[in-house]
Amino acid sequence: MVSSHKPEKLNGIKFLLLEKIDPITLKGKNDFVISMDTVGAGIHEIVFYVSGSSAKYTSVTGGGLPSDSAITGIVDFIEKDGLYTYEKYKA
Amino acid sequence: MVSSHKPEKLNGIKFLLLEKIDPITLKGKNDFVISMDTVGAGIHEIVFYVSGSSAKYTSVTGGGLPSDSAITGIVDFIEKDGLYTYEKYKA
Amino acid sequence: MVSSHKPEKLNGIKFLLLEKIDPITLKGKNDFVISMDTVGAGIHEIVFYVSGSSAKYTSVTGGGLPSDSAITGIVDFIEKDGLYTYEKYKA
Amino acid sequence: MVSSHKPEKLNGIKFLLLEKIDPITLKGKNDFVISMDTVGAGIHEIVFYVSGSSAKYTSVTGGGLPSDSAITGIVDFIEKDGLYTYEKYKA
Amino acid sequence: MVSSHKPEKLNGIKFLLLEKIDPITLKGKNDFVISMDTVGAGIHEIVFYVSGSSAKYTSVTGGGLPSDSAITGIVDFIEKDGLYTYEKYKA
Repeated sequence: MVSSHKPEKLNGIKFLLLEKIDPITLKGKNDFVISMDTVGAGIHEIVFYVSGSSAKYTSVTGGGLPSDSAITGIVDFIEKDGLYTYEKYKA
Repeated sequence: MVSSHKPEKLNGIKFLLLEKIDPITLKGKNDFVISMDTVGAGIHEIVFYVSGSSAKYTSVTGGGLPSDSAITGIVDFIEKDGLYTYEKYKA
Repeated sequence: MVSSHKPEKLNGIKFLLLEKIDPITLKGKNDFVISMDTVGAGIHEIVFYVSGSSAKYTSVTGGGLPSDSAITGIVDFIEKDGLYTYEKYKA
Repeated sequence: MVSSHKPEKLNGIKFLLLEKIDPITLKGKNDFVISMDTVGAGIHEIVFYVSGSSAKYTSVTGGGLPSDSAITGIVDFIEKDGLYTYEKYKA
Repeated sequence: MVSSHKPEKLNGIKFLLLEKIDPITLKGKNDFVISMDTVGAGIHEIVFYVSGSSAKYTSVTGGGLPSDSAITGIVDFIEKDGLYTYEKYKA
């Protein structure tokens, strides 16, 4: 998502459109959120993000930015009951 | 939305009625939120807003306002998997 | 809603039962929230309230009250696409 | 709810299982939340609780506890449009 | 859930995949959340967690981590109306 009309302090921040997934089937839920990237995430990667005021506690979104969603990790594995439902480097 | 009966420190703040949209189809979801404008948004524009306590971190809503929703950007483009689902200046 | 058994610092606070409405049809959604009054709202008025930690930023709920919902305005008009869906002083 | 395996600073805190109710019919919604008691609430009482970071603003949960839900009042009356839907001391 | 690509300050934090349960029937709701472990929780244990900014108030997640969910207790018992719906050491 790109926005040119925004407060100056948001310049340089990358806004990514995330689709929530079921962590077991990995299917998209058709439920989206706009999140500020702090880790250099790319298309089709599964990421971990934090919501709410906690989104202000990253090196990118710190310093008083109006952020309520920030990507804080790229997921390598998801495991449930000893089985992997997702392995980034195998796919 | 206009309110005359409110705390003095909210005077001059513009309250906009936002309808949430599906970012792919751009259809309205019939789900509304009242948000404080900080960027001069207009009718029918697609905007980006933050919720919760993060809404207090703008130049307009800062200074201890009771704000839980603030518009922080006017959207130019929305892109999914390399395709634009929205282009402000083409519409 | 009246509660006699509560922390002393909540004495004098008026707890109102709010029903969420559709801002276009003005119909109640049968979805309720208890909110602390800060503007002297009355029965059947349409009000604006803030949720979460932002509810602590009013003259009434400030000073460290455990408040997660506060009424911060009585609504005069609601307008969508140039048409009023609600006018307080016309009804 | 009882938990023995928890941070020391949560010792002595009573965790209650709350069922959300419809404030008009008083029927349970089969929707539950675990909340820290700060007022000495008992079984079958209707209580008022706060969610989110505001739950840290009580005498019991203050001092930096990881609390996101706290009971802050026992309800005496609920009134809608001039009629009581609940009266604690009449039931 | 394992993430290698994340801010340094999140190194050493264990991210657990939690499935929300009905506290009466104990059945999973197929609704998941990623939470930071602060108590050494294991597979198939029922845990108590806090959401939102309150998740930053533990010894593990303190110090400015971008955390919006933290496990703060392992549940021993759940009781409703005098009957146990769950007893950890009996199962």
